[in-house]
Amino acid sequence: MKDVGKKLLEGDKRALARAITIVEAGGQEAASLVKELYYHTGKAHIIGVTGSPGVGKSTLVDALVTEMRKEGKRVAILAIDPSSPFTGGAILGDRIRMQDHTLDKDVYIRSMANRGHAGGVSLGTYDAIRMLEAYGFEVIIIETVGVGQSELAIAQTADTTILVLMPGSGDDIQAIKSGIMEIGDIFVVNKGDLPGANKSATEIIASLELSHHPTSWCPPVLVAISETGEGVGKIWSSVKEHHEFLSDSDQLTERRLGKVKAELSEMVAEIARTNLENSLDKSNEISNALSDVVARKMDPHTAANAIIKALFGEDRAGIGLERKETKPVTS
Amino acid sequence: MKDVGKKLLEGDKRALARAITIVEAGGQEAASLVKELYYHTGKAHIIGVTGSPGVGKSTLVDALVTEMRKEGKRVAILAIDPSSPFTGGAILGDRIRMQDHTLDKDVYIRSMANRGHAGGVSLGTYDAIRMLEAYGFEVIIIETVGVGQSELAIAQTADTTILVLMPGSGDDIQAIKSGIMEIGDIFVVNKGDLPGANKSATEIIASLELSHHPTSWCPPVLVAISETGEGVGKIWSSVKEHHEFLSDSDQLTERRLGKVKAELSEMVAEIARTNLENSLDKSNEISNALSDVVARKMDPHTAANAIIKALFGEDRAGIGLERKETKPVTS
Repeated sequence: MKDVGKKLLEGDKRALARAITIVEAGGQEAASLVKELYYHTGKAHIIGVTGSPGVGKSTLVDALVTEMRKEGKRVAILAIDPSSPFTGGAILGDRIRMQDHTLDKDVYIRSMANRGHAGGVSLGTYDAIRMLEAYGFEVIIIETVGVGQSELAIAQTADTTILVLMPGSGDDIQAIKSGIMEIGDIFVVNKGDLPGANKSATEIIASLELSHHPTSWCPPVLVAISETGEGVGKIWSSVKEHHEFLSDSDQLTERRLGKVKAELSEMVAEIARTNLENSLDKSNEISNALSDVVARKMDPHTAANAIIKALFGEDRAGIGLERKETKPVTS
Repeated sequence: MKDVGKKLLEGDKRALARAITIVEAGGQEAASLVKELYYHTGKAHIIGVTGSPGVGKSTLVDALVTEMRKEGKRVAILAIDPSSPFTGGAILGDRIRMQDHTLDKDVYIRSMANRGHAGGVSLGTYDAIRMLEAYGFEVIIIETVGVGQSELAIAQTADTTILVLMPGSGDDIQAIKSGIMEIGDIFVVNKGDLPGANKSATEIIASLELSHHPTSWCPPVLVAISETGEGVGKIWSSVKEHHEFLSDSDQLTERRLGKVKAELSEMVAEIARTNLENSLDKSNEISNALSDVVARKMDPHTAANAIIKALFGEDRAGIGLERKETKPVTS
């Protein structure tokens, strides 16, 4: 397909699908596309929905989309699936879901495997969000599976994060006590018809009072039954209130600066990692260093410095800029 | 404490505890300690135990240690806890466990938060294993929580990986089908007294027949009841058989080369990331690039290249070694 970026901006859904596939793959084509479309981004409200498997995140997202559609919002859902780092296969695959919304042209659903290095946010995820923004979606929901570190990292790409729990999940309450709480802007006790829903909500509120939310926003704790839609309207109102809070208090810009820092830090690390991987077979210096570490002839820290030298040149090794700034290079 | 490395080699347990704290923190002191002790490592059998929360990994590890102690093996357990990237607190904390073994001087238990960047294996984990090896433990068990990408990565640090499941866990069977299976050298259906244990074992065997284990090792699928110790002796025998298989077939060296590659790749990325983070406040070029990205004046890919230039010098940007080798630098 030619002119993917141009067609995407004109509202071509096939071009959007193609664009996401391109940025998912990465490389030069992805970089050019992002460069072309970046100035059309930044206007959507990005909502992260996270929580342990089984708490009903997908059902909640479906119900939320129904609320958003009542107001005519154009909504995209990016479902991040955990994938095996070994085969690259997405666990959830192309499951049939969102049956109520599949025929709605203003709702777009895309599953994406998270192939970020070592569980981090894949750089493709950031860029996929950008493609959806450039297309013109007003709300983008990032739905993740689990509350491991990588899922938390994905939640950090959002403006507003909804943490979903279910009644009586002791592990999650533990997680909350240990600080995972801090990422939640809105807490939802889903499956509110199960016993213990109100007790769980009370426990969360008690934990919240002990924790320090990074902003002056006081996260609401809401009980909902996503299956029937009960309480979901209130969640959508809270999401909008949070967005207003961010916009009014300069927090939105601050959050986005934090996101850009995280992304660029990961990009720079990725460039270094790619340089190393591309050089493994080409550089005797590097492959010898690896063999020497295995044979216990060289320790790994010494090897890492030797590799940095081989990759980036003698005077940049080890401590890079820091060394450059604190003393002149004399060697 | 002076001479931590020397005392550790002499068998001082307080020095061992101190050494792990040092490598967990990282930095120059950690690098020196690893350098000093690296030549005393490489002899232990490293066993990874992984699986979803609730399948009984800790109980299984306790029962396995009992088997190992019958043969007089000196055993260390490194329990990797998921931790909040926001507060750094370990969820499981210093739980009281391993009650049967706490008074046994040849068993050492250490909890460690996994603070690796973006969910990866923390570099401190690799070095903590080295401290335990240098001390002289013959078997080192790395116990992780969950089967997310980061836990899988930790499992890759092991010579032998035990994947623990419980009867009727559909999600896990899904995971197996999608390839997570490939990391398991030994499969254990724990809580074998629950209904469906044999059915689960049969399902796993069927999935295994469809998958391609990277080596010619045929992973056994064992049913056990860790609470009573039933079937645990057989697991320990299989672990030993796997180790023999690795040693006899050169796979051990190959696996360890893979581990060293993964670790050094992460170290190099970490050095680049640290360089960037240290430079954020010092370099106007870098902080301007970040602000420009937020303000949509510069796209992130262009910014990443500008940052690489600022960090590592003009002629190393973007494609590093590759560019260096394919054409002379003319600028």
